[in-house]
Amino acid sequence: MNYSVIRWLVGWVLCVEAAFLLIPLALCLCFGEPYAADYLIAIAVTAVPGVLMAWRRPKNNAFFAREGFVATTLSWIIMSLAGALPFFISGLVPNFINALFEVVSGFTTTGASILPDVEALPRSLLFWRSFTHWIGGMGVLVFLLALLPMAGGQSILIMRAESPGPSVGKLVPRLQKTAVYLYGIYLTMTLLEVAALAVGRLDLFSSFCISFGTAGTGGFGLLNDSFASYSPYVQIVVTFFMFAFGINFNFYFLLLIRKAKAAFVMEEVRAYLVIFLAASALVTVNLATQGGMGVGSALLHSAFQCSSIMTTTGFSSVDFDLWPTFSKTVLICLMFVGACAGSTGGGIKVSRVLMYFKNISRELKRLIHPRTVTVVRLDGKALDSGMVGSVNMWLLSYIAVFFTSMLLISLDNFDFTTNFSAVAATLNNIGPGLSLVGPSRNFGDYSAFSKLVLMFDMLAGRLEIFPVLLLLRPATWRE
Amino acid sequence: MNYSVIRWLVGWVLCVEAAFLLIPLALCLCFGEPYAADYLIAIAVTAVPGVLMAWRRPKNNAFFAREGFVATTLSWIIMSLAGALPFFISGLVPNFINALFEVVSGFTTTGASILPDVEALPRSLLFWRSFTHWIGGMGVLVFLLALLPMAGGQSILIMRAESPGPSVGKLVPRLQKTAVYLYGIYLTMTLLEVAALAVGRLDLFSSFCISFGTAGTGGFGLLNDSFASYSPYVQIVVTFFMFAFGINFNFYFLLLIRKAKAAFVMEEVRAYLVIFLAASALVTVNLATQGGMGVGSALLHSAFQCSSIMTTTGFSSVDFDLWPTFSKTVLICLMFVGACAGSTGGGIKVSRVLMYFKNISRELKRLIHPRTVTVVRLDGKALDSGMVGSVNMWLLSYIAVFFTSMLLISLDNFDFTTNFSAVAATLNNIGPGLSLVGPSRNFGDYSAFSKLVLMFDMLAGRLEIFPVLLLLRPATWRE
Repeated sequence: MNYSVIRWLVGWVLCVEAAFLLIPLALCLCFGEPYAADYLIAIAVTAVPGVLMAWRRPKNNAFFAREGFVATTLSWIIMSLAGALPFFISGLVPNFINALFEVVSGFTTTGASILPDVEALPRSLLFWRSFTHWIGGMGVLVFLLALLPMAGGQSILIMRAESPGPSVGKLVPRLQKTAVYLYGIYLTMTLLEVAALAVGRLDLFSSFCISFGTAGTGGFGLLNDSFASYSPYVQIVVTFFMFAFGINFNFYFLLLIRKAKAAFVMEEVRAYLVIFLAASALVTVNLATQGGMGVGSALLHSAFQCSSIMTTTGFSSVDFDLWPTFSKTVLICLMFVGACAGSTGGGIKVSRVLMYFKNISRELKRLIHPRTVTVVRLDGKALDSGMVGSVNMWLLSYIAVFFTSMLLISLDNFDFTTNFSAVAATLNNIGPGLSLVGPSRNFGDYSAFSKLVLMFDMLAGRLEIFPVLLLLRPATWRE
Repeated sequence: MNYSVIRWLVGWVLCVEAAFLLIPLALCLCFGEPYAADYLIAIAVTAVPGVLMAWRRPKNNAFFAREGFVATTLSWIIMSLAGALPFFISGLVPNFINALFEVVSGFTTTGASILPDVEALPRSLLFWRSFTHWIGGMGVLVFLLALLPMAGGQSILIMRAESPGPSVGKLVPRLQKTAVYLYGIYLTMTLLEVAALAVGRLDLFSSFCISFGTAGTGGFGLLNDSFASYSPYVQIVVTFFMFAFGINFNFYFLLLIRKAKAAFVMEEVRAYLVIFLAASALVTVNLATQGGMGVGSALLHSAFQCSSIMTTTGFSSVDFDLWPTFSKTVLICLMFVGACAGSTGGGIKVSRVLMYFKNISRELKRLIHPRTVTVVRLDGKALDSGMVGSVNMWLLSYIAVFFTSMLLISLDNFDFTTNFSAVAATLNNIGPGLSLVGPSRNFGDYSAFSKLVLMFDMLAGRLEIFPVLLLLRPATWRE
């Protein structure tokens, strides 16, 4: 293992984070909040080791898959530890495990909270909380790739480890440029949402925080009731942008280079739209018939909630834990499906689900005609068997992590629905679950041990299982 | 599609079933119950079409995978329709959907019941109810294979469609002989259990019925509280035999031909034992610490319940729905793992779970050393990629059926735990679930539609998904 290059990368991540922490410090001074010293300490504790580690560029440039996975996972863990400092040092979240949970939930764009009263936080910290979503959404290492000159082999391995989806591709031949494009699209869309919200007479601070939460498909909000008390206009704008950030960014890139036709035939994007429309329609009918809601408000809340859950954002416009079971079950299915690969959303990803269904259909055909050779295609391209196998292995690991986590947190003796939905909500990076972790509740009641398990799940979900599992495998370190 | 050979096979299945129905008729006369006429009608309705269909041996012997799957699934459906007649005609279960549910549950060895009061049934019908488990456990078509002279290609396709497990093999080169051996082992072990129970001074009727329920890993009992009021001796005997019937029958065959060494190194059997011991130990500790039970009774009930759930039998010695969540979560995990392939038990099967874990471990290795060629072995034999792919496809179909079913039955608006465990308990052929379908409750409250969905799941579980899915695929009939 080439430790020096990992040290160097983690150092850079810390430096970038320290720079990001200057924003809440500035806001703190601006709003006259009494936490400036706490931010300064947090920045110092982050920056000093960061600078020391990033100072000397490593001589040994050997960088293989192993280094890519380890550097990525370690970066995410250490950046979470540093990100928790403002919460902890300020004494606003006096328990470090809780502070860490909140920040892991932020960076991984989960949005699960341990805070019973969000509104009690100072605005600078609310900003930092939402901003972690924005950083985590596109990935801090992808951000680094846009900044740092790196060897080509190095950067693609890092990108693969950090970016969601079964096949991470470059938009343009040069990876640094790809990263710049991705962040460019990301920033533009975020600013568009800020503008749309500001047009609805929302104050600029709220517009920014909400947009960060939407862009990263995170879910942290500013109010205790999430989105229930915002105007229908705000709810509709957010519904639209949550959906938009769940789309594969290749789609936007194709639009940008005026290949609209190629963009609109992307099978994953089409399937994503169809699933969203079908789920919203089913929930609307169910709410209007069994849930005692008017059709108009059923449609509004159904679209908001389906968009929020499918993109794994996790905002709520209403306490959906009180909905009829059918609607809740639709939401649970959406939790697992998730957003498109190459978006900021989590979950299994629409492209994987598509591949699974195509493969089932092929297998049924093969059982009856054992000698026929059939090929599974996605976007017209044949999927090779290595890819299919890898996507299957991913699901197996996902299931193994799911059940192990559920078993471990069940020691707290909460009910089955709570535990199942808590793991589903963290492993898929959604945020709220059902029952005791429903939209009107929080994760604070779980024991410290369970919180660590759920933090593991959030990281496993954001980094797509393998990098995190590899870190736990002794042979990764030994070989 | 060669309809004539399917007609012929289904006809034979009905004839065999009519013959089996003579036993409860005899018991009915013996015990002086007033249902003899009802049995006679049921036998006539079963036998007449059966004889007509089986009368003429088909001229066209063309028999391919498709015919194997269709004949098997249709046989199971038609045999369930006929098996429900005694319940329905006697008026003891006046709703035909309920009668059908009970019998599908019987043949598929699920053991999920719609009866609130089992003890109210006459003894002849209790016998028939338990006997359906015994017939379904080893499979009625495997029974036919033992009786009928068939073309070799035909019989292996039927055996594959009906027998559980990822790779159905023959014990001996001739398939008819294999079927005879399987039924021989099955009958001998059943009689051993009858003897063991009778030694504990249980009456012969109960001993037989309980042994049928154990042998088929079914779960129908004779008392409303299942096994709670039997003596510890009976509970221990049943714990042992449930476990024994969950072992791959190849194991017994190897013992029989004095290859004990080969039997004891079977990886699946070893893993099955390890999982059972680990689960029992965990539950025992949990019950003794969180559940307020003495160590002795914690051990007894834990072993009974783990054996019952893992083998997918579904007897209960205690209302485990009242256990702490950790113990319940262990049981839920066992529900999915299931018994060994080639046993009478259901679930995913230990050998598949083993393959999944071996494959995950291989994938992690491959990610770090992309160019290494690694082979996954089971019992020393390398698994070819076709087999691995097929086992993965099976899991994908299983998951798709699981979530679709959960969505459909959620229309009844029961809670999530009830629906999740109802599907888990039927698709894995276990019987009782948690909450509203827990051991002290039954499936009677579900709507007729949900019952049909759950019956589909029971059949899908028993026939291992593909045969049932193929029946629903229009192309199967069209081509």
